[in-house]
Amino acid sequence: MVKKLTKEGNRAVGESEEDIAVVLIGHGSKLPYNKEVLGELRRRMEMRGLFKEIRVAFMQLNSPSIEEELRSLAKDGMKNIVALPVFLADGAHTTEDIPEKLKVAFEGVWDEIGRDVKLTYAKPIGVDERVVDILLDRVKEAMQEE
Amino acid sequence: MVKKLTKEGNRAVGESEEDIAVVLIGHGSKLPYNKEVLGELRRRMEMRGLFKEIRVAFMQLNSPSIEEELRSLAKDGMKNIVALPVFLADGAHTTEDIPEKLKVAFEGVWDEIGRDVKLTYAKPIGVDERVVDILLDRVKEAMQEE
Repeated sequence: MVKKLTKEGNRAVGESEEDIAVVLIGHGSKLPYNKEVLGELRRRMEMRGLFKEIRVAFMQLNSPSIEEELRSLAKDGMKNIVALPVFLADGAHTTEDIPEKLKVAFEGVWDEIGRDVKLTYAKPIGVDERVVDILLDRVKEAMQEE
Repeated sequence: MVKKLTKEGNRAVGESEEDIAVVLIGHGSKLPYNKEVLGELRRRMEMRGLFKEIRVAFMQLNSPSIEEELRSLAKDGMKNIVALPVFLADGAHTTEDIPEKLKVAFEGVWDEIGRDVKLTYAKPIGVDERVVDILLDRVKEAMQEE
C-alpha cells in the first residue's frame, strides 16, 4: 500500500517508512467510542507492518495528549514523526488547535531529544471515494437491521 | 454496491432503495471545510444513482439544520428516510444530540406529512479497513509533499 518513501531533502540515505513513527490524533470524547475506534485503527495499521511505531493521542478529554505522545516518541529516539489527524474534514481543530499543540510539543526538550527530530503534519481523511463506499454500506446496514 | 433492499416488515412490496431519501448529517463548523466535504460526499453518492434523494444537514453552526431537512423531505412526499451521521465514531453528538433532533423533527407536522413517514438512524463510519487504507495514504502523501 505505502510505497517505499524517498525524499530529496535532508533525509538520511536509506531511510524508509520503517523509520517513521505515526501518531493518530483523535478528537477525544467523554464517551469511550472515539478512543476505541482510534485504538482499533491503530491496531489495524500496525498489522500492515509499514511503520516503526504507531501511537494514538488525543486533542482533548482523553490521554495521552498530543504533546505527551510526541515527546515520548522523540525521547524513544524517533527522528521522523508524522502527526495524522483522524478527522473527517479540516476545521478549527485541525487548522488551529492541533497545530498549536504541535508547535509547542518539543519546547524545552530539544536538548534532550536532539535538534534533528522532524515532525510532519498530514491531512485529514477528507473527500475520498472509499468514504462514499462506507457511507453507502452504512445506509444498507441500517435498512437491513430494521 | 448497495444491493436491492428487501424488508420483511411493514415496507410496501416492491419498495427499493430508489424510494429512500438519505440525509448526510455533518457536524457543522465555523470554517467552510466541513460543509465542503459533506457537499462533495453528497455529490459523489448521488452519482451512484442508488437513492431518490440525498441531502446534507448539519448538527450545528451551518444550515440547513437536521430538523429543517427532514421536514423538507417529508413534505416532498418521501416516506422512507435514512439519517446518516457522517462522523468517524459514536460520541455525545451521535448518541445524544442528533437523536434528540431526530425525535422532535416531525413534531407538529405529522398531520401535514402523514403518519407513515419512517425515519431510520444509521451508524457512523466507525472502524473500517477502508479507513485504514485512507490513513495510510494520508501518511504517504504527507511524506511525499515534503
